[in-house]
Amino acid sequence: MNDYQPVREDKFTFGLWTVGWRGVNTFGEPVRPVLDSVEAVRRLSDLGAYGVTFHDDDLVPPGSDDDTRRQLVKRFRGALEDTGLAVPMVTTNLFSHPVFRDGGFTSNSRDVRRYAIRKVLRNIDLAAEMGAQTYVCWNGQDGAETEAGKNDRAQLDRLREAFNILSAYVREQGYGLRFALEPKPNEPRGDVLLPTVGHALAFINELDHPEMVGVNPEVGHEQMAGLNFAHGVAQALWHGKLYHIDLNGQRGVKYDQDLRFGAGDLKEAFFLVDLLENGGYTGPRHFDFKPPRTEDMQGVWASAEGCMRNYLILREKARAFRADPEVKAAMEASRVGELSVPTLGEGESLADLRGEQLDLESVGERGYHFERLDQLALDHLMGVR
Amino acid sequence: MNDYQPVREDKFTFGLWTVGWRGVNTFGEPVRPVLDSVEAVRRLSDLGAYGVTFHDDDLVPPGSDDDTRRQLVKRFRGALEDTGLAVPMVTTNLFSHPVFRDGGFTSNSRDVRRYAIRKVLRNIDLAAEMGAQTYVCWNGQDGAETEAGKNDRAQLDRLREAFNILSAYVREQGYGLRFALEPKPNEPRGDVLLPTVGHALAFINELDHPEMVGVNPEVGHEQMAGLNFAHGVAQALWHGKLYHIDLNGQRGVKYDQDLRFGAGDLKEAFFLVDLLENGGYTGPRHFDFKPPRTEDMQGVWASAEGCMRNYLILREKARAFRADPEVKAAMEASRVGELSVPTLGEGESLADLRGEQLDLESVGERGYHFERLDQLALDHLMGVR
Amino acid sequence: MNDYQPVREDKFTFGLWTVGWRGVNTFGEPVRPVLDSVEAVRRLSDLGAYGVTFHDDDLVPPGSDDDTRRQLVKRFRGALEDTGLAVPMVTTNLFSHPVFRDGGFTSNSRDVRRYAIRKVLRNIDLAAEMGAQTYVCWNGQDGAETEAGKNDRAQLDRLREAFNILSAYVREQGYGLRFALEPKPNEPRGDVLLPTVGHALAFINELDHPEMVGVNPEVGHEQMAGLNFAHGVAQALWHGKLYHIDLNGQRGVKYDQDLRFGAGDLKEAFFLVDLLENGGYTGPRHFDFKPPRTEDMQGVWASAEGCMRNYLILREKARAFRADPEVKAAMEASRVGELSVPTLGEGESLADLRGEQLDLESVGERGYHFERLDQLALDHLMGVR
Amino acid sequence: MNDYQPVREDKFTFGLWTVGWRGVNTFGEPVRPVLDSVEAVRRLSDLGAYGVTFHDDDLVPPGSDDDTRRQLVKRFRGALEDTGLAVPMVTTNLFSHPVFRDGGFTSNSRDVRRYAIRKVLRNIDLAAEMGAQTYVCWNGQDGAETEAGKNDRAQLDRLREAFNILSAYVREQGYGLRFALEPKPNEPRGDVLLPTVGHALAFINELDHPEMVGVNPEVGHEQMAGLNFAHGVAQALWHGKLYHIDLNGQRGVKYDQDLRFGAGDLKEAFFLVDLLENGGYTGPRHFDFKPPRTEDMQGVWASAEGCMRNYLILREKARAFRADPEVKAAMEASRVGELSVPTLGEGESLADLRGEQLDLESVGERGYHFERLDQLALDHLMGVR
Repeated sequence: MNDYQPVREDKFTFGLWTVGWRGVNTFGEPVRPVLDSVEAVRRLSDLGAYGVTFHDDDLVPPGSDDDTRRQLVKRFRGALEDTGLAVPMVTTNLFSHPVFRDGGFTSNSRDVRRYAIRKVLRNIDLAAEMGAQTYVCWNGQDGAETEAGKNDRAQLDRLREAFNILSAYVREQGYGLRFALEPKPNEPRGDVLLPTVGHALAFINELDHPEMVGVNPEVGHEQMAGLNFAHGVAQALWHGKLYHIDLNGQRGVKYDQDLRFGAGDLKEAFFLVDLLENGGYTGPRHFDFKPPRTEDMQGVWASAEGCMRNYLILREKARAFRADPEVKAAMEASRVGELSVPTLGEGESLADLRGEQLDLESVGERGYHFERLDQLALDHLMGVR
Repeated sequence: MNDYQPVREDKFTFGLWTVGWRGVNTFGEPVRPVLDSVEAVRRLSDLGAYGVTFHDDDLVPPGSDDDTRRQLVKRFRGALEDTGLAVPMVTTNLFSHPVFRDGGFTSNSRDVRRYAIRKVLRNIDLAAEMGAQTYVCWNGQDGAETEAGKNDRAQLDRLREAFNILSAYVREQGYGLRFALEPKPNEPRGDVLLPTVGHALAFINELDHPEMVGVNPEVGHEQMAGLNFAHGVAQALWHGKLYHIDLNGQRGVKYDQDLRFGAGDLKEAFFLVDLLENGGYTGPRHFDFKPPRTEDMQGVWASAEGCMRNYLILREKARAFRADPEVKAAMEASRVGELSVPTLGEGESLADLRGEQLDLESVGERGYHFERLDQLALDHLMGVR
Repeated sequence: MNDYQPVREDKFTFGLWTVGWRGVNTFGEPVRPVLDSVEAVRRLSDLGAYGVTFHDDDLVPPGSDDDTRRQLVKRFRGALEDTGLAVPMVTTNLFSHPVFRDGGFTSNSRDVRRYAIRKVLRNIDLAAEMGAQTYVCWNGQDGAETEAGKNDRAQLDRLREAFNILSAYVREQGYGLRFALEPKPNEPRGDVLLPTVGHALAFINELDHPEMVGVNPEVGHEQMAGLNFAHGVAQALWHGKLYHIDLNGQRGVKYDQDLRFGAGDLKEAFFLVDLLENGGYTGPRHFDFKPPRTEDMQGVWASAEGCMRNYLILREKARAFRADPEVKAAMEASRVGELSVPTLGEGESLADLRGEQLDLESVGERGYHFERLDQLALDHLMGVR
Repeated sequence: MNDYQPVREDKFTFGLWTVGWRGVNTFGEPVRPVLDSVEAVRRLSDLGAYGVTFHDDDLVPPGSDDDTRRQLVKRFRGALEDTGLAVPMVTTNLFSHPVFRDGGFTSNSRDVRRYAIRKVLRNIDLAAEMGAQTYVCWNGQDGAETEAGKNDRAQLDRLREAFNILSAYVREQGYGLRFALEPKPNEPRGDVLLPTVGHALAFINELDHPEMVGVNPEVGHEQMAGLNFAHGVAQALWHGKLYHIDLNGQRGVKYDQDLRFGAGDLKEAFFLVDLLENGGYTGPRHFDFKPPRTEDMQGVWASAEGCMRNYLILREKARAFRADPEVKAAMEASRVGELSVPTLGEGESLADLRGEQLDLESVGERGYHFERLDQLALDHLMGVR
């Protein structure tokens, strides 16, 4: 039996803030000690991860002087070199500090907006230095509790301005970085700007350099709005905009749970892995989760292992599902392939189409056999085929 | 006291299927008689509406022969002429008939897709003849209960193909029509294609003629995903894509309620009217609601009246809110205007921005006074100022 | 490999209205033919079901004369005898007909309330005659769209009155029937009376004969409110009130999907089966689902088979999970058994408890290892152990 | 014009933790300074509040020695005496400290359960000494992320045991305290024990002294499950179990927002106030809200003022609504009063009821005119009548 042991080629990455989460939330104090970033790198390497990612503040506590910063970065790079772990993505913390209480790029305070851009610029230099390919931006505090407090269109203007500035900078510097927007519908703000993958994809088209900006969808963030994550990711892929992905778990429309991957909607996770493996996505499989507060550090590592294990299990099942002749026959019966045939044939005109008649009665009786097909998927997922 | 009596200039429109809804749903049989479309036109005219809209099948029952069709259309046009009501929007029913059980433009069945396009083409001719400016497309059956049954990217390809065909046709015919996509997250399908305003806006950018296609957001459809409707509409306006709007009411994340406008989230309705009135939207205020099954025809008309009344009440309040000097001062205190100032000043370079220092401590203490501002909005909404 | 072929002893039952659902909803016309009840009985028997259930109107169309009624019942009984299928539960349709547009037992119309009771009484006689043990009451139209339209406490009084009348009747007649309330949060009404298992359990305590009334929770109904179904059923069991259960699938907070069992939240389904099998529930496993409109009759039967198959698969997995020594060790590590030890020991007084000290620091560091345990559950569910 | 200035008789109370909330959540650091409890008392008194409430730890930091505790309590009592503010309710913090990471009364750790009871006992003494009438218990950490980690029935046993112990203690001491359970569906745990008002009401019936235990429903907690708060409170009143109430605001199914009262679902707030004022509830109107992180201390007080102001505005409107002759006529037309007439008349038997006939056709056509009635409520709410 497969032991689902991850290897570098699986491209699993973790945020330092995930295994390092201390468990602070609205109702609870920290339950775990500070996790040293070097320790995190070593443990993740031992578990078979491919890389780590971080917010600027995860690595260098805000307010550190230049010397401290240099030493911390050096130490971290040492651990990366020792282990061979990559840093394929870097991001900025524009949410924790009180100055961001009304947002970063779109705070009503212009001085905060300028600080936010400055903070990102500095960290972009570090990201480039680390060899990252993707720079994620989660604008989690950019939102509102009252519609009266924001001019939405000005807010979108400011967000566009920020990405235009950042894109220009990256181009000037010749960095090989692309940006990935991370949408979220709410929390910590009552409503967050660019609430879903769709809103983010639409926004990108208004930028000076849309080709430099894609999305970083997170499982739980779409599911918090009751949206089907696999369908959202598929649309991002269709637009050529899936630059990065955040894998975790969520059990329905509620607060942001950040469960380990697989521990939320399992069927959706199956179809997601199926899509990622067969949809042309080649980037990292990045876990952005929070080990529950009930866990001690041993539990944290078990949780991290579970993320990768579940991905590997589901990958194996998705492959078996696609290879199963009965599944292929069921897809045929469901006319899945027929959807790839253009509706208007080559050389056909509207006149051809308008001249046809559809036998409404008999076509109305046509069944699509999706239940059979879905059951085959469940059978594979549950390992009974 | 204002009697909130609607007039033509208010541009209120209603779908024939709204006041004509007979009350059939999953759990209930029809509770009201068939409403003659001429009667609907006359009553809506008496109530002060500006126009009516319809699905092809609302006006001409499917399967009618050409003569019947001609007579029904003629009779309807007579009523329009008598009353002076306009038909600013027309749409197609691609959901009720069993042939659409797996969708219209993106059914797995190619013959159904062809029929769907044919059905729309025929109705576009009628829409143009009626002088409509907007053609709404709600792809409500284009979705899935199982991810296995659809190739999402093929599905988006087919949807694009359909709109490219339709746009080409409208251009060839020289019709003055624009299309408006109506997103919805789910119901009647488990997950619907283009689930939110954002997803639809993103999709439009991939079309041959994106300038011909915008969105028709519906209050309840976004709120079914827990999304803030006013923010979604604001983003559509920012993209220049608010071609039409469906006003109704919804009380949270649940089945599609289609309550009368104002009867759902009242605060959101207030900010929505504020946005429409001040955001440059000049199109019809279209009500797409379903008078509850508890109502007889008298209740249906009371419900229709309520839609318009609530809009007019909220419009009055939104104007008073914007004109109130105390509100202006509160907005100033909340730095609302400051968000319209570019983050990087004219002539400034990144060097200027990078050279600055933010006093984190004092700026972290800065309050935004949104509670005061929101309370002023509530005071206006409740009529106590 | 187990073929998961159901047998009578598995006690699987189906409502006639499930496989017989024709696919009518708010947005769609019927897609399937009328299913003869005798045909339904035969097919379900062939598939391995234990019994069937029905609403009065499923068996005898409303308005049938006494002769027709007698013949229909006779014919149905014949099929039951031929196949050996049982009728362990019967229910009443108090929702489809227009008279129930404001509810049955709690309609604002007293004549409707009387009719509703009459309709149930008549059907109780039939239920007793059929040998049913449980009489389910779903008060789906007993709700409101506006709080102004109902005096909630009067509504609860009327509901109590109805159950007191019905209980008295059953006692007088000496029938062996118990009632089971089926809660639902909304749909078809904006808000439904007794929205959750909890509200129903609380209500029962106010009845003249609480021992005659329990609950019939439905998977999707609790999940429509974002509630964990397994926890809700566990509480019902704790109160000794799980008289019947409706199994189906739901994918989150949205309209009532009535998917086949297993096709919704799979992990929850696993823990539910685990609970039913180990929690002392011995009643029927009743499927109350709606084969999606995309299915023809072949798909309907596939869907029904899938319900039973998924239950059997999950039952096998739940047994393996409980028998796995590693799971037992993990439960020990998670102190699961310790929760069954009374907090105050036998013979202990509050003084003992008050005299203790807890080492806050070390106990605060204690981990519960739930991630490991949950992963073992997932491993079993996915069949990789 | 009414200035909506609160007075003591309005019985408005606030938790120390509300105006004292520093703004820490999963994504943000504290934004406001520590608020001294004496300062809180003085400011709330100046604003017109009737009383304050507190968790043990709000008043006395955990780990304080007896001397510190005595001084802090003394100082606080001094402020109460100076201002005349009452302490009608006290509660315990069984959630913040890491020892409670798996709950208090139902932690899997028996030593934690014992500590939790001990912590409550000690604080009950203080509550009694302060003259409180109600002791609220929010078991927010008593829940689970995985069903495998809890034996639900053991968990309910332990919760029952805890309340039996506490009730016995209160009786022994002769304290005039009653307990009020505060339900919540989720957050901070994935699923919380006793998720709704209904579940809590059901639980109470299993206690040794059910008459000593009621509920403390919180607006947002029920609305987080998409439930109608007014209906839930009405059921609690019907059971005679509304011992206390937490007023705040929530905008739909999402994380726990704790907005100021009135800032969430406004229509629901209107009907809630209508119910509290006319439903026989005489206890405190307790605000349990969190001034948003965007506010400085000035904004905190504005937010607290807004809570009371909105209640008073809505109270005035509810009174006007009930007094309006047109509303009375509309209620008559909607047969609201008819629901209070017993379904079976005095002296009637089932035979009378069974002998009747309902004219299904004409009664099926009957309309209930709820739209008109609801519009009158909106008119009152918006102040246009």
